[in-house]
Amino acid sequence: MRIGVDAMGGDHAPATEVAGAAMACPLLADDDRIVLVGDEEAIRSHLQQQTGWADKIEIRHAPGVIGMDEPPVETLRARPNSSIAVLTQMHKANETDACISAGNTGAFVAAAQMALRRLPGVRRPGITVLTPTHRGPVAICDVGANVNCRPQHLHQYGIMASVYIRAACAVSEPRVGLLSVGREDAKGNNLVKQTRQLLRDDPGVNFIGNVEGRDLFRGVCDVVVCEGFVGNVVLKLIEGMAESVIRAMAAEVGEHLPVEQESVAAASRGILRKYDFNEHGGAPLLGARGIVFICHGASAPRGIMNAILGARKFAAHQVNEQITERVGRS
Amino acid sequence: MRIGVDAMGGDHAPATEVAGAAMACPLLADDDRIVLVGDEEAIRSHLQQQTGWADKIEIRHAPGVIGMDEPPVETLRARPNSSIAVLTQMHKANETDACISAGNTGAFVAAAQMALRRLPGVRRPGITVLTPTHRGPVAICDVGANVNCRPQHLHQYGIMASVYIRAACAVSEPRVGLLSVGREDAKGNNLVKQTRQLLRDDPGVNFIGNVEGRDLFRGVCDVVVCEGFVGNVVLKLIEGMAESVIRAMAAEVGEHLPVEQESVAAASRGILRKYDFNEHGGAPLLGARGIVFICHGASAPRGIMNAILGARKFAAHQVNEQITERVGRS
Repeated sequence: MRIGVDAMGGDHAPATEVAGAAMACPLLADDDRIVLVGDEEAIRSHLQQQTGWADKIEIRHAPGVIGMDEPPVETLRARPNSSIAVLTQMHKANETDACISAGNTGAFVAAAQMALRRLPGVRRPGITVLTPTHRGPVAICDVGANVNCRPQHLHQYGIMASVYIRAACAVSEPRVGLLSVGREDAKGNNLVKQTRQLLRDDPGVNFIGNVEGRDLFRGVCDVVVCEGFVGNVVLKLIEGMAESVIRAMAAEVGEHLPVEQESVAAASRGILRKYDFNEHGGAPLLGARGIVFICHGASAPRGIMNAILGARKFAAHQVNEQITERVGRS
Repeated sequence: MRIGVDAMGGDHAPATEVAGAAMACPLLADDDRIVLVGDEEAIRSHLQQQTGWADKIEIRHAPGVIGMDEPPVETLRARPNSSIAVLTQMHKANETDACISAGNTGAFVAAAQMALRRLPGVRRPGITVLTPTHRGPVAICDVGANVNCRPQHLHQYGIMASVYIRAACAVSEPRVGLLSVGREDAKGNNLVKQTRQLLRDDPGVNFIGNVEGRDLFRGVCDVVVCEGFVGNVVLKLIEGMAESVIRAMAAEVGEHLPVEQESVAAASRGILRKYDFNEHGGAPLLGARGIVFICHGASAPRGIMNAILGARKFAAHQVNEQITERVGRS
């Protein structure tokens, strides 16, 4: 399998991307290859600092870069030689079997949608994040690809995210919850009410009904379906709050307990790791006709490595084939 | 000032409500009175266990109760003698100057809207929660009164929540952020884009632009404006996550540190208190022609007490008069 990785994407590119790719190499199969896409000279110089990647990593030169804050679609059009554009075009041309970027999410999603189109029957792709919780991972779909959802889109998110979490986390019968403002049928906006009916009527979805914000951490469901606007707010809120609460807790513990700061720091690191977005590496754009993994801009090498391994697992479990089959049946 | 309190509302009614009301008494002015509304016999029997409330608490008998999970509007119509219906009708008839309930939020909001109507110029009332963060409280409006918002509603939420947090927390120039999926102008759905223009064009609002989920904990703004669906998800997510992270942290600290569980528990309690919804007691329904404070169903006596004190402060700072004046100008 050939996995394309945007080397110029994240906040510390290309150092993080190159280190992450090298880190993944010992875990790949014999015929797997990683193609780092971006400024050849910069990539090569960072690769020299890494070991254990020989014969596994190739470079595809792409001179342009799309900055994190640049307008996605316009910049993409103006810069066809950017790493994101080249990365997605390579996947379209079957030169790679997957593409991964920690760069400008809007640009990457737009490029992937334009180059790859959608799987048969899929109306809108959705970004699906595996959120680590203490009751196990929860897949949230969509977290930002689609801020104007229709009920049919949300219904398909339930189907696609179920297929994905089954493959990624070995959850056998994923319980699907619809994010709303109360558990009762009557609660929610029109989008939620109409989606509820579709999910309930689909025997292929293990639908448990509405869930609320607090339920994300209570182990009541494995998949949370929501429109991209809400999902994106939720995702960033979890990120910001984990950081804030954990810091506060460390300070509080330091006040109450007669222990060295070093041990408190160790405890904080332990818990932070459990809420770390690097844990699952990347979020797939489910429904795209291809394998598209979006990484956090602040990804560590471990996050890039996990995205590479995630893309391999995605292919091995034939997630796209399963999605096509399931969407066709509903 | 006469403050009506639904004695039959919360999860542990009327014990919690009666205890909270008694707790507030020593902090009230000479001519302040609390009117507990609900089953007279039950209230009286719980009052006997309290002290320090003599001459400050009155009882208004209301035999009916609206359950937490009953459909709000239908039940309200069918039960005009319920504590919530009587509570709001008393406020309408000027028998009280404020009303507080920890009961069925949907029923309370519907009853308040029907009985009291809106302040002049206000299009839709919004529930405003003060969320404690380590950078100070953040007012989120709306958290569930209005799940079908228009840009004009969100604009007024920015105005009303600014007036409120200035009064409640002495924030002199509240910075208003609009909750979206990215800070850039181009990010967000149509509702956000249109609202952004209205807020930016209003010289009376200290608008700082779009904010993201993570910004809630970063001290970048004092007011977060969003539609009720998103706000409600956010509110419940914060609640669920605080609980989850703090428990996890306590467990982690216990693993790493050679200290007694007792001290870890003390630290957890300390931090939990900072994220406790009882801290600010109740959330006002801003824009209602009256003083309406909504409490969490799981409120402790301290939460009820704080809502009573919050309603007093609300009246003392003439929040409604200020809102009317500010909305009239925009």
